[in-house]
Amino acid sequence: MTHTAKLTVRSYECDSYSHVNNANYLNYLEYARMEYLNAIGFDYKGMVEEGYYLYVTHIDIYYKASALLGDELSIQVIPVKMGAVSGTFHQIVAKADGTVCAEADVSWASVNAQTGRPCKLPAKFMVEGLQPETN
Amino acid sequence: MTHTAKLTVRSYECDSYSHVNNANYLNYLEYARMEYLNAIGFDYKGMVEEGYYLYVTHIDIYYKASALLGDELSIQVIPVKMGAVSGTFHQIVAKADGTVCAEADVSWASVNAQTGRPCKLPAKFMVEGLQPETN
Amino acid sequence: MTHTAKLTVRSYECDSYSHVNNANYLNYLEYARMEYLNAIGFDYKGMVEEGYYLYVTHIDIYYKASALLGDELSIQVIPVKMGAVSGTFHQIVAKADGTVCAEADVSWASVNAQTGRPCKLPAKFMVEGLQPETN
Amino acid sequence: MTHTAKLTVRSYECDSYSHVNNANYLNYLEYARMEYLNAIGFDYKGMVEEGYYLYVTHIDIYYKASALLGDELSIQVIPVKMGAVSGTFHQIVAKADGTVCAEADVSWASVNAQTGRPCKLPAKFMVEGLQPETN
Repeated sequence: MTHTAKLTVRSYECDSYSHVNNANYLNYLEYARMEYLNAIGFDYKGMVEEGYYLYVTHIDIYYKASALLGDELSIQVIPVKMGAVSGTFHQIVAKADGTVCAEADVSWASVNAQTGRPCKLPAKFMVEGLQPETN
Repeated sequence: MTHTAKLTVRSYECDSYSHVNNANYLNYLEYARMEYLNAIGFDYKGMVEEGYYLYVTHIDIYYKASALLGDELSIQVIPVKMGAVSGTFHQIVAKADGTVCAEADVSWASVNAQTGRPCKLPAKFMVEGLQPETN
Repeated sequence: MTHTAKLTVRSYECDSYSHVNNANYLNYLEYARMEYLNAIGFDYKGMVEEGYYLYVTHIDIYYKASALLGDELSIQVIPVKMGAVSGTFHQIVAKADGTVCAEADVSWASVNAQTGRPCKLPAKFMVEGLQPETN
Repeated sequence: MTHTAKLTVRSYECDSYSHVNNANYLNYLEYARMEYLNAIGFDYKGMVEEGYYLYVTHIDIYYKASALLGDELSIQVIPVKMGAVSGTFHQIVAKADGTVCAEADVSWASVNAQTGRPCKLPAKFMVEGLQPETN
């Protein structure tokens, strides 16, 4: 499955270069992953209530073009890897005209909220869209 | 040259997991790079006034341990690559007890502020510490 | 004129209390004011290009109920005062069920971007919706 | 008691006007209040562990001068009101040369973390510095 979240660049996300600051892209990516989880029916709230968190473990992001105030961005989310307690999403941030602003691989791990240690999520949370599509 | 910036985790930098959010590490890294530039005598303000910006082009960051409210973090900055219009810093975010919270390579390019296109900075800005140490 | 901007609370806007942090409301308010300015045909980009800024001079905000991850918020913007170089908007942040999360008065001044001193905007920028409605 | 927290303006706190964005002042104020609570021996961590939060209920802030990248700011915190479940701090953000950038009254309430409803903190948390000085 692929999912595309949309947002419009807000004034307070721009820095003194008048473009979206590099850290704010990570916020955008997080927002898009949450939308993705919603779209595939992942019970995020239930997961937290049962004592699990999703930690980000690695981000590899290339910044390719500046995004400016008012730009309408789409953020594609594509699962590309999935293990027992971790996975990776590929994410592409693009403008309405197709210009790619940033492209990233974001890896996550499921952890026990008390200890912060990686652990398997209960089976009921493991919805299909977490895994890469196979052909 | 190596430089270490220090900061203490503030309440508003922590998310609903009560640890520093992944995007805020990029703010920390930026802060430490600015401190580094100050320490080596790089004239950042002068550079902006003459119409140049430093863009971040690539960040590869591993999150290794959670940082919590009040943690005193040190952020090491080490130049590891330097070309005509770009370079890379290695950065390590660690707690007082030596636990590494995050480790990253951050690449930058000097650009013309009007066009956003890579361009050489005038020679006067090219202070020594931008380059990796050679043995 | 009254205008209502809409947004959904994002994960990174929530703090360790799992609700929207007080500072993020000010971002929401800014976002809604920018949407308002767009809606009334105010040429924000043109104003900046001609060397003017809009500074916020005073915010009086009451926090009344917590907003949580995923909450759909509407932010009403109502001009309530207007002078030669300043004005005030009343803004109400509410949930879909009508619960008011925050209510604020935000005052602004038009300034010369070089000096930061209050100054009149050229007449062409003074669109009608900046002023309170009169009966 | 009066307490003064210090910080230096970081690059990512500045917006496209190249000054500290209005929302970031609220972060600064929060940071200074946390430092104040530390200074008076308030057991914030213990309070959270026992199921209480401190909510901000009202902020009245005047922005008086711009703070810029690298400015060293001091933030004074003075308790000015104290009731059974709420209180108010007066806070002044100033530059090294004494220029006041912002001045605010921030009111808070102690709440039950489960319900978000105001409630008294156990007596052991009620250290002296929460209250205004009497002459």
